[in-house]
Amino acid sequence: MSTSTFNRIDTPAGPVPADAPPWNRQRRSQMPSHRYRDAYARVEVPELEREWPRRRLTRAPLWVPVDLRDGNQALAEPMDPERKRRFFELMVAMGYTEIEVGYPSASQTDFDFVRLIADAGIAPADVTVVVFTPARRDLIERTVESIRGISNPIVIHMYAATAPTWRESVLRKGRAELKRMILDGARDLLELAGELPNVRFQFSPEVFNLTEPDYVLEICDAVTELWDATPERPVILNLPATVEIASPNVYADQIEYMHRHLARREGVILSVHPHNDRGTGIACAELAVLAGAQRVEGCIFGNGERTGNVDIATLALNLHAQGVDPMIDFSDIDEIRRTVEYCNRIEVHPRHPYVGDLVHTAFSGTHQDAIRKGFAEHRSRAAAEGRSEREIAWRVPYLPIDPADIGRNYDAVIRVNSQSGKGGIAHLLESEYGIELPRRMQIDLARHVQLHADATGTEVTAAEVHRIFQRVYLGAEAAGRRVELEEYEVAEAAGAARARMSIRVGEARSVHERTAEGPVEALVSALAERGTALEVLELHQASVRSGSDSEALTLIEYRHAGETGWAGGRAESVLSASLAAVVAAANAIGSGS
Amino acid sequence: MSTSTFNRIDTPAGPVPADAPPWNRQRRSQMPSHRYRDAYARVEVPELEREWPRRRLTRAPLWVPVDLRDGNQALAEPMDPERKRRFFELMVAMGYTEIEVGYPSASQTDFDFVRLIADAGIAPADVTVVVFTPARRDLIERTVESIRGISNPIVIHMYAATAPTWRESVLRKGRAELKRMILDGARDLLELAGELPNVRFQFSPEVFNLTEPDYVLEICDAVTELWDATPERPVILNLPATVEIASPNVYADQIEYMHRHLARREGVILSVHPHNDRGTGIACAELAVLAGAQRVEGCIFGNGERTGNVDIATLALNLHAQGVDPMIDFSDIDEIRRTVEYCNRIEVHPRHPYVGDLVHTAFSGTHQDAIRKGFAEHRSRAAAEGRSEREIAWRVPYLPIDPADIGRNYDAVIRVNSQSGKGGIAHLLESEYGIELPRRMQIDLARHVQLHADATGTEVTAAEVHRIFQRVYLGAEAAGRRVELEEYEVAEAAGAARARMSIRVGEARSVHERTAEGPVEALVSALAERGTALEVLELHQASVRSGSDSEALTLIEYRHAGETGWAGGRAESVLSASLAAVVAAANAIGSGS
Repeated sequence: MSTSTFNRIDTPAGPVPADAPPWNRQRRSQMPSHRYRDAYARVEVPELEREWPRRRLTRAPLWVPVDLRDGNQALAEPMDPERKRRFFELMVAMGYTEIEVGYPSASQTDFDFVRLIADAGIAPADVTVVVFTPARRDLIERTVESIRGISNPIVIHMYAATAPTWRESVLRKGRAELKRMILDGARDLLELAGELPNVRFQFSPEVFNLTEPDYVLEICDAVTELWDATPERPVILNLPATVEIASPNVYADQIEYMHRHLARREGVILSVHPHNDRGTGIACAELAVLAGAQRVEGCIFGNGERTGNVDIATLALNLHAQGVDPMIDFSDIDEIRRTVEYCNRIEVHPRHPYVGDLVHTAFSGTHQDAIRKGFAEHRSRAAAEGRSEREIAWRVPYLPIDPADIGRNYDAVIRVNSQSGKGGIAHLLESEYGIELPRRMQIDLARHVQLHADATGTEVTAAEVHRIFQRVYLGAEAAGRRVELEEYEVAEAAGAARARMSIRVGEARSVHERTAEGPVEALVSALAERGTALEVLELHQASVRSGSDSEALTLIEYRHAGETGWAGGRAESVLSASLAAVVAAANAIGSGS
Repeated sequence: MSTSTFNRIDTPAGPVPADAPPWNRQRRSQMPSHRYRDAYARVEVPELEREWPRRRLTRAPLWVPVDLRDGNQALAEPMDPERKRRFFELMVAMGYTEIEVGYPSASQTDFDFVRLIADAGIAPADVTVVVFTPARRDLIERTVESIRGISNPIVIHMYAATAPTWRESVLRKGRAELKRMILDGARDLLELAGELPNVRFQFSPEVFNLTEPDYVLEICDAVTELWDATPERPVILNLPATVEIASPNVYADQIEYMHRHLARREGVILSVHPHNDRGTGIACAELAVLAGAQRVEGCIFGNGERTGNVDIATLALNLHAQGVDPMIDFSDIDEIRRTVEYCNRIEVHPRHPYVGDLVHTAFSGTHQDAIRKGFAEHRSRAAAEGRSEREIAWRVPYLPIDPADIGRNYDAVIRVNSQSGKGGIAHLLESEYGIELPRRMQIDLARHVQLHADATGTEVTAAEVHRIFQRVYLGAEAAGRRVELEEYEVAEAAGAARARMSIRVGEARSVHERTAEGPVEALVSALAERGTALEVLELHQASVRSGSDSEALTLIEYRHAGETGWAGGRAESVLSASLAAVVAAANAIGSGS
């Protein structure tokens, strides 16, 4: 890094000096990080004129889910045949046209599953079936045996680890010896399956990202030469980040280096297979596509050994979220999730991109307020354009995509806790109970809901907000109310109302006859006579959308003894609701709430 | 992208043409991706000569956990004071020296927590306390009120949303009007807190990543001018990716653009605050640091609204894993995890980088085999160098870091299911029971364990492997064994043994006296006489490390009727164990297993 702008953020060698400025007080940890310098030093790509940093994602790569092989290998309880078949059928239904189905030479279950594809015809004709094998003749023979009779396009995927640590500790072979072993395997494969017209070949130099670029290039070129890669029968070269070790720009450089230097580039489909040890699998895949990769292997929601394979669902929906067709159908993401969870027996995290339970949820007040305004803008723009809300451009703040695109409704979008404000609270009343409150009353209600949330420490449901609303404003739970309007008759004409009202205050009943501008004024006047003076400042006939009996809801703001407050009444007619609101206000004053 | 190498991967407009080559059969989905083109089109950075793509991470940025504010806002059940305090104390213990503690103007709990810091002295003197406020005078006043009397360094963090959608739908202000509002807030802050010597200021243009670069630059420069940012009293400019919308190279460009164009750059600490909607929060933070960011805000294990804030634990451990001091102590990651889960009431996913339950686990046979060899290489290298295994360079395949660095043991590293091979199975017997098997016997045992795993479909524990080992080779569970060595006496001299053995076969007992090369030969000869002919091909005195009574374990490979098999005997002496192994073989032959 250039030192000019960074020299003020220092790393003190020992304890923090007493005179260090407050922004510079981090100190060395005791973590033995020096142990990893070696491994990282191996990851160096020759300098190149990069194109990938300035590119943008403009179309989907070829997707290849490896859930049935790489993902399955990493499960504490690998899939039985029934779960394997169900997962396979899900992938076909979603639109995947190339699917790795197993490692038939390593597992009888996998071998049998490939035979099931041959015998039961569960793979539609346009789906390419990929099988995985090491570069060893007996295992290649067994693999070729497994695919006999399958009429689908087939890819036989051969792998061998190429990185120095693997060569030294595991395989105990030098560079030349390992290359010979790989080419022997490639030759065996050609001999045993080269004549099958529906078969193509794939080679993965495992741990590509930790292998010397010149060596892996040499091997890849030797393999495509041997297999005679051509545009008519291309070879897949798949370059895995088997264990993530460097920031994603390094992997992008590695891929662009290969993309530019590979022989027979027109006869090669360049593929990547990132893992997620550093939490950057998604980024590695995306930057690799910018760098020249055409095909991506991964697992749906990111299952796989250790931290998992790259999540090809998130990759696809990332394209969707920026206007690019993902080429896969995610219109019912929760059904996909149920099947994947059933097959893998691992749950998706609530914050997993796109699919987690909480990812369309906002708890914070400012977010909720913005979302509410965004929804309103969205509805009115749809109306103005005369088009469906499901079709017009999406601009709702804090929601990267419309939950409806992936088959979700808006129930989970706004949830209320002590951090929420008026917007979210009002949204719950509106969306669940069809009650729209005036803005200043939203603020008043929020105060009551927050007191409740602070006291309980838990989330507040729409039902609880509604209960608080009824208790505070409608006096719904008040037992033995002090003031009651027991009976009334009203006759209204233009600008005047004649009312006869029977009022109980405490135990005392009285009957009042009034002529006033309206029945509300008549009731206010009668109550004043009985010692409860209040002034109605505003009166709203609230809009109530839901509910089977289309009740009326009246909300009033009133003043009493210099203080203002809100009250409401709900009834079958607007008249009854208005009078009920005034009675609720009279009781609120009486109770001092 | 260049079309020359991509033109063969096409996106058909409608159904897949019948003559499409098999690698080109993906078809358009029905997803309404067109709805998002607008938002994405807004993210355009002026062309720049990038430096970030070629850089490497060489030191830790300043870390600022925002768990108590941004993370807390996103919890269904926000932290009560007890959980808040516990989380704060965890962060101090881990070594964080700058901590955002709350949003005191929005929540009484947060206000009270800031007062607790003032009154109870729970923040060590070198820890900077950050409080968050909108750009509104009444809320700034309340914020300044909350920090009165705190002697720690303090940052007051003011934010305002600046992106077009927010300006249009939420704030309903034009560019100039919003800028005035922000500068009014900045002026209020200066007026109310500028004289406090321990206070510095931070400004966040919220949704920075969706804001026009020229506009956000203009606002940032106006704010640092107003606050008089200098190297002696720097201003923090924090540039959030509030909602992830583009691939991480775009965010890196946005940060490098700001880094290069900001006025008073020496008086600015450039900070980033990524979220994770696209699953690329980690990458955005790392590339932003390469692009000039000096400070990163996030949450430990990535809590936060929707998909969460960037995970600053993974960021720190990514540095550790490539040889850079993370400046934070993760030496007991499971204790950190327990506290974070307790405070957030959200569990960490089993595949979460570094901390998940499964991230140091290998189930696949090839991985297990490589890990076993890697551990052996590690041990012998430590011995050769005369240094501790905890100190020397780490090169074990498939394990990016030594689990011991973060306080874990190796128990979870190798777990066995139907996908596992001999390596993992042998590892379990070795690590849990101290039993080392010869290589060919490992292969034989693996066959039995895989049959068991295939039949049950579940994970196989070390205890189950041990049980299978005892059943198959030691005949441990065989009730009513056919052959038994009931008594024996042996006298051995150089090269010869005299043995007297009492043998039961079925119900018939006989006594045999033999002189042979050794007692095993004597027993084999006696058994042959009783009609059970077997030949001992190999005899291993197996190494048994664990166990309190240091028993002897003998393993033999034998031949009978042209077939070979393995058997074992375990006893207190080598002699008894050897004879028991021969008897086990005789019984295995008899039972036909």
